[in-house]
Amino acid sequence: MRTIKLTLEYDGTEYVGWQRQPNGLSIQQLVEEALQKVMGNPVALHSSGRTDAGVHARCMIAHFRTDLDLPLSAFREGVNRYLPRDIVVRAAEEAADDFHSRFDAKGKWYRYTLYLHPVRSPLHERFTWHIRGPLDLAAMTDAAPSFVGSHDYCAFRTTGCVARTTQREIYSFEVGREGDLVHLDVRGSGFLRNMVRVMVGTLVEIGFGKRPPESIGSLLAGESKVSPGATAPPQGLCLMDVWY
Amino acid sequence: MRTIKLTLEYDGTEYVGWQRQPNGLSIQQLVEEALQKVMGNPVALHSSGRTDAGVHARCMIAHFRTDLDLPLSAFREGVNRYLPRDIVVRAAEEAADDFHSRFDAKGKWYRYTLYLHPVRSPLHERFTWHIRGPLDLAAMTDAAPSFVGSHDYCAFRTTGCVARTTQREIYSFEVGREGDLVHLDVRGSGFLRNMVRVMVGTLVEIGFGKRPPESIGSLLAGESKVSPGATAPPQGLCLMDVWY
Repeated sequence: MRTIKLTLEYDGTEYVGWQRQPNGLSIQQLVEEALQKVMGNPVALHSSGRTDAGVHARCMIAHFRTDLDLPLSAFREGVNRYLPRDIVVRAAEEAADDFHSRFDAKGKWYRYTLYLHPVRSPLHERFTWHIRGPLDLAAMTDAAPSFVGSHDYCAFRTTGCVARTTQREIYSFEVGREGDLVHLDVRGSGFLRNMVRVMVGTLVEIGFGKRPPESIGSLLAGESKVSPGATAPPQGLCLMDVWY
Repeated sequence: MRTIKLTLEYDGTEYVGWQRQPNGLSIQQLVEEALQKVMGNPVALHSSGRTDAGVHARCMIAHFRTDLDLPLSAFREGVNRYLPRDIVVRAAEEAADDFHSRFDAKGKWYRYTLYLHPVRSPLHERFTWHIRGPLDLAAMTDAAPSFVGSHDYCAFRTTGCVARTTQREIYSFEVGREGDLVHLDVRGSGFLRNMVRVMVGTLVEIGFGKRPPESIGSLLAGESKVSPGATAPPQGLCLMDVWY
């Protein structure tokens, strides 16, 4: 039995997210169908995690097991022939027999990108959250490290989150500017559903001066009177890397 | 009579180009229709030039004349309310009575972007030309300045070009690398139809070692035995700036 590890990239704009859903096309479904066309039998693809509707990935890791004696190129070039332009297999590798893309992941890097300008930008539309008003980036840069550490991130998940434990570790949270773009780079052991987007929404409210920087600490301490910020929209989010 | 100068940005993926065409939606048509909704009467919009189907603009300049006493915000925020997400008016300004976006333009900057990687990238798909094979960037960087100067660029236009004169001046042609992306920045007094894309196609063939760098000089000298490179695809091209 071989274990094949796939590195996938996608523009999530048109999809209901990574995971199969009854209400629309998912990336998982299209990759599984493309694999089936190449392999001739149904394939169960496991991934390092899910991405929500409209969220992108520069590097999503997935794996499957097979007895077929196909060359690795069949799982990259072969599969790519059946994938639409907005999804691609970047790499296919042999992995250890017991490799599991989800359980073995040591960490993930998500990037959230803001576009700061009074006017929206068609050229940045698909991959950024457009913020019109002035943002206090210094306050955001100062506040971002408050997210770092081992904490109960219960306050930062969406109501639909079914994770058994809400303890996670955030390794770093950096704010970087590149012209009109602001990159929020978050690295951590794992993430609850919508966690990055709620953290970003909270940080942006700090940037607008709508909440004190200390509210992050209050949320992590589980103070029930404090609410997190609104969930940032999906198109600004991209899964950049997963490591093992 | 007022003259209003508009700065427009668009993602050209879905359009037949700037100019109105019988066979599909153009950017000009959508902007003129949005202006008409705000102004209540038909508007003739003139632009600094055309962009072809699938070509983008970070900065396209256009103008129109009107007797209406509307504030400038009507021509930006007002018009933007009627434009789709992939087109926007970035700025609306009062211009001199006799300003003409096309005849007064002193120069334009076009950027063509290549994506160099063995595998295609969904995240770069819309705005780059994907080149799989290795490219000799040093050879391209050395050859690019051969385009600079006042020349007859007759060899670099498309068959459909109707310009009366093919004499133009190229101010600079620079090759810059940013990771897997290569930016080809061309600045000049004006451009014939498809001229940037034919220059890029020629330069890429030099990068592939398919033609000698000297062939650019031969083409500019009008040597009839030499053919230019294939026209580069539209999605890598973006009109970056127009100056007056």
